Amino acid sequence: MPAGRGRNIRGVNLSTRGELLATNRPTPRYIDEHFARVENRWDPDANPDGYVSMCIAENKLVWDLLGPKLAAGREVPQRVVEYDAMVGTASFREALAIFLERHMVGRPIDPDHVIALAGAGTVLEMLFYTIADPGEGILVPTPSYSGFWPDLETRDELQIIPAHTTSESGFRLTVDQLDEAVAAASVPVRALLFTSPNNPLGCVYSHDELEDIITWAETREIHLVLDELFALSVYGEAAFVSGASLRPALGPRIHLVWAFSKDFAASGLRCGILVSENEGIRQAVDGLAYWAAVSGDTQFVLEQMISDDAWVDEFTAENQRRLGLAYREVTAALEKASIPHVSAQAGFFFLCDFRPFMDEVTWEAEAELWEWLLTTANVNLTPGADCHIGEPGFMRLVFPSERTAAVVAGIERMGTVLAERRRS
Amino acid sequence: MPAGRGRNIRGVNLSTRGELLATNRPTPRYIDEHFARVENRWDPDANPDGYVSMCIAENKLVWDLLGPKLAAGREVPQRVVEYDAMVGTASFREALAIFLERHMVGRPIDPDHVIALAGAGTVLEMLFYTIADPGEGILVPTPSYSGFWPDLETRDELQIIPAHTTSESGFRLTVDQLDEAVAAASVPVRALLFTSPNNPLGCVYSHDELEDIITWAETREIHLVLDELFALSVYGEAAFVSGASLRPALGPRIHLVWAFSKDFAASGLRCGILVSENEGIRQAVDGLAYWAAVSGDTQFVLEQMISDDAWVDEFTAENQRRLGLAYREVTAALEKASIPHVSAQAGFFFLCDFRPFMDEVTWEAEAELWEWLLTTANVNLTPGADCHIGEPGFMRLVFPSERTAAVVAGIERMGTVLAERRRS
Repeated sequence: MPAGRGRNIRGVNLSTRGELLATNRPTPRYIDEHFARVENRWDPDANPDGYVSMCIAENKLVWDLLGPKLAAGREVPQRVVEYDAMVGTASFREALAIFLERHMVGRPIDPDHVIALAGAGTVLEMLFYTIADPGEGILVPTPSYSGFWPDLETRDELQIIPAHTTSESGFRLTVDQLDEAVAAASVPVRALLFTSPNNPLGCVYSHDELEDIITWAETREIHLVLDELFALSVYGEAAFVSGASLRPALGPRIHLVWAFSKDFAASGLRCGILVSENEGIRQAVDGLAYWAAVSGDTQFVLEQMISDDAWVDEFTAENQRRLGLAYREVTAALEKASIPHVSAQAGFFFLCDFRPFMDEVTWEAEAELWEWLLTTANVNLTPGADCHIGEPGFMRLVFPSERTAAVVAGIERMGTVLAERRRS
Repeated sequence: MPAGRGRNIRGVNLSTRGELLATNRPTPRYIDEHFARVENRWDPDANPDGYVSMCIAENKLVWDLLGPKLAAGREVPQRVVEYDAMVGTASFREALAIFLERHMVGRPIDPDHVIALAGAGTVLEMLFYTIADPGEGILVPTPSYSGFWPDLETRDELQIIPAHTTSESGFRLTVDQLDEAVAAASVPVRALLFTSPNNPLGCVYSHDELEDIITWAETREIHLVLDELFALSVYGEAAFVSGASLRPALGPRIHLVWAFSKDFAASGLRCGILVSENEGIRQAVDGLAYWAAVSGDTQFVLEQMISDDAWVDEFTAENQRRLGLAYREVTAALEKASIPHVSAQAGFFFLCDFRPFMDEVTWEAEAELWEWLLTTANVNLTPGADCHIGEPGFMRLVFPSERTAAVVAGIERMGTVLAERRRS
């Protein structure tokens, strides 16, 4: 009998795995703190001391464009309430294939290779379930999106092997770092999960950098999962290049993940996309899809939206313009507050360097500083530890998750309390 | 290295579990046959020989009532596209608690005890994940909904212990049958999954029958999951009684499952509901919910819908009237075709008895007859084997899954070919 079997939680027995979930919540603490404060949001007049969220990767800058589009075309057909393919309706997957060709990959995509599931996290969870068995390893360069850990470790029981980049090199990834991580791993490595544009760095990778990464994965004959969730959220000089565009076909080991969450500011609609030419993997994911299907009504609305090319072009251009504008305003606020940060060209993030405000540069000091900023400045950032960075002292700041005035006010507050701290 | 590791499917290696999924599709064959034929549907004029589906539990009789309601109130608030609690927004769960109190349980329900996930199958998959560990047993009376097997066995790796009822007793369930099933089980039994109104029998259970079942589960200190997906789809003399109404509180071991799929004819919207007072189980399910959240837009639409009491009352009454009307028309058609069947009072089903048309009453003969009806009469029923009935010769006929004229036409066709068969 495994440890824990038959033990009681609040008076009734759960399974061992249920008990583990109940007592070890997979969500990081910064997210719980966010939802505990979100009702008390900052307002310039009504609530100037209110909470400023800078930790959740959402884009609140474009609702005026998106809202009317979601409300339009509500002559919903009966098929939206009927059972259909759990991996997405045929018409939605056709629209997605055309959309992905036009806006990301630049060459035709077979709609049969496209699968829609309830969120990008679900796509990753189900894709990696089919790629690797419990205990096996998946390579993830860091700093990283914090959610990969629950996505891969909780239900799939995989082990993430971090490949740490360093602040010295501006967190640039090299294939040597990937080789070192594989060499240090105590379990077989089955895949590389690569994020571009990067979360939390906000960088895009050049054609040559991507070529190195893809060739590396090909040579080692491991799967390469391209997480390109911020493909259209690019506002800097450097253009986004999809890793999928570097080969005439993905082949059986390269898989593309995208979602509506980030590039269409619609994380609540729970719609993530997988593109894979590997028939076995698609069949296996199809076998799981029933437990994470996208609402038929939501598929219909999103299909109408992405099939309107002119609207998508206009929305994307305006979204990029607003992200760039917010990025520059927030850069100015960070500079005024003397908070160093990594420059970005895409995504929703600044990776801020808080080492100048720390007496000792340790993980404990980082955690303490994060909590102190939360309580004294009422702002919530993502601790670098949750991004699994290889060295302490950094935090992720999400800049379009509130209107820019709120983020600037939050940074001003941070500047004030940090100045005190530096003096003390 | 486990068997299969490193083997290739179509040129690339999957994980052992991925390979199992890719090569052993969990979906029953009758469902694949359905989707292969669905484009060629029956039409009295244009396609009189067309396909008639009688195998998928959907209700197509009320779209004229539901469609306008789904299209109304599309002044969607921004929150529908934002991250929110993965178990459902606070306002949706409050509306659900009131709805469930008013229409099913008859006493107040705490919104904190309500969880919404992407479909009832997902609710079951995640709930049983937290109740039982791999290899453990869950008791399921038969005939049964076929989907419980993939829901519990595929990802959760549980074993369903069938408690067979018999045609001799009209498939009535007794606690002796439950005891016998537990005694015969080679693994520990952790829960009873009980469906009322029953799928595929279409019966409702009386207060006294429910009392026996609940007392039985309480005495054995196992979890009892009440699957009441057809609670509002009752059209016969016998009134529906919710098992949850028999106790002043559910307590830590009774859990209620419901969904919009059946009672609101909206299987495509992927929204299932769990009510549980067990805090540990709710926490554990919450830890899984990120991978199966309901679209925020869909939550909003459904919240607006169920908060309109007058509309719900009117819709439910009219739905029940139409189900009853269709039931009586289909009964007449079955009688005319000389197909015996079990009488029903709720749900979407007839359990038909095809033994009079079989030379030998075996599972092989049942499978052969099902396929023969599919090819000669172009109708698709659910084989009794897929309902895990304890004896061969029965099939489930879903009557509101097409307009009644289509179902009647399909039954007439069956009558014609079966008459030939009887003579031959």
